[in-house]
Amino acid sequence: MQFTSEQLLDDGICEREFMLGEIPGILWTPASVSAPVPLILLGHPPLGLRTMYPRLAGRARHAAAAGFAAATIELPGSGDRPRWAAVEQARADLRRAVEAGEPVGDELIDALVLPLVEKSVPEWQAALDALLSLPEIGGPVGYSGGVISIGIRLAGVEPRIAAAGLFAGSLVPAVMFEEARRVTIPLHVLLQWDDEGNDRQAALDLFDAFGSKEKALHAHMGGHTGVPQFAGEDAAGFFARHLR
Amino acid sequence: MQFTSEQLLDDGICEREFMLGEIPGILWTPASVSAPVPLILLGHPPLGLRTMYPRLAGRARHAAAAGFAAATIELPGSGDRPRWAAVEQARADLRRAVEAGEPVGDELIDALVLPLVEKSVPEWQAALDALLSLPEIGGPVGYSGGVISIGIRLAGVEPRIAAAGLFAGSLVPAVMFEEARRVTIPLHVLLQWDDEGNDRQAALDLFDAFGSKEKALHAHMGGHTGVPQFAGEDAAGFFARHLR
Repeated sequence: MQFTSEQLLDDGICEREFMLGEIPGILWTPASVSAPVPLILLGHPPLGLRTMYPRLAGRARHAAAAGFAAATIELPGSGDRPRWAAVEQARADLRRAVEAGEPVGDELIDALVLPLVEKSVPEWQAALDALLSLPEIGGPVGYSGGVISIGIRLAGVEPRIAAAGLFAGSLVPAVMFEEARRVTIPLHVLLQWDDEGNDRQAALDLFDAFGSKEKALHAHMGGHTGVPQFAGEDAAGFFARHLR
Repeated sequence: MQFTSEQLLDDGICEREFMLGEIPGILWTPASVSAPVPLILLGHPPLGLRTMYPRLAGRARHAAAAGFAAATIELPGSGDRPRWAAVEQARADLRRAVEAGEPVGDELIDALVLPLVEKSVPEWQAALDALLSLPEIGGPVGYSGGVISIGIRLAGVEPRIAAAGLFAGSLVPAVMFEEARRVTIPLHVLLQWDDEGNDRQAALDLFDAFGSKEKALHAHMGGHTGVPQFAGEDAAGFFARHLR
């Protein structure tokens, strides 16, 4: 992991951009800490880190206020990373289906999501190796948000992740319901009750499928981008309980 | 309203028992406040105030820690109030149906819940008149917990209630779904995902029915009495946002 830039934000948070091989990423560490801190991995939709930066930096500030570091990496095929023809094709097919008012079939959902899960999860794990080798970062580690199937896979296969906050806001391949049953870490799941791009019953079924003994579903009114600010405070409480 | 006893609890909270006509009640006010405080009405199941006292006092302590007064009254037919033959008959019928593994029919649910709603809601309103006339209590007023149908009716008909925290943990007559549509105040709804005495889909349908623009559903694992402690912290955040 090579740090490529460093700046102090106005609230004393240190923001460093890095390259993990060919993968760009950002690490935020809280101001003036004396001992290694817990870490929250910030998931995000595949829109590119530059596009997502304001929201990611806002979430990182909340993490830092709780005494946690936060980090994220670019998803394959997004931002400054090379285009990925197969996934771009699936996205174009999805747009076409949605605009034509056609149902989004299982094959299309699989083509859209599964390659992203396959490729990105090992990258997040490599990032975790690098981040946990830094003296200022200790653990435990939480994962938060982004493409929920990536969160499901990571929560199931990566034992260093102690708790996950997931957003039931994207299409989920049927196979991920099986993987959800094998997830046992504490979960905090957000659902937007009127999410235009998401099937409410499927989201409730997914919540039901998770094997975790401690899981909470927080459903709020409104569409995909309408998550209320206080939902962030409840999620902060969840991570504070599990990462401290 | 006649106060019949007064004691200071160890954290400085003043606990006063009162009689509102024939109805016993308890009022808790926080230690050392200079201005009139908001009030949370503490709903409870019809098991009698003495039985419920430890849990009610715990909730009142949380309210007081946030700077709120809390109050409750005995439900008709419970505790020291006269027996109520019709409701006792319905309860016996319910027990019999549940023990025999029979479905609990709509008529039985109506007989069990509707008389309680009809009789108790005007009593809570009378208690509100008396409580809001005390110089130490200002408002706004929240309603929390207990028989959800009482909460639905109160939230719909009593304009002085500004926000309600409800527990989707009891049988709900079909007619209350209609009343739920007319509720517009902010709501915080708790659901125990594996509540043995409650139909999960009916609870989700009820949440969907509420007319409120701000409503949140917090679902947690476990049975009826398994509400985790952190659920109380999230509910406290809800009331802090709306009563302060």
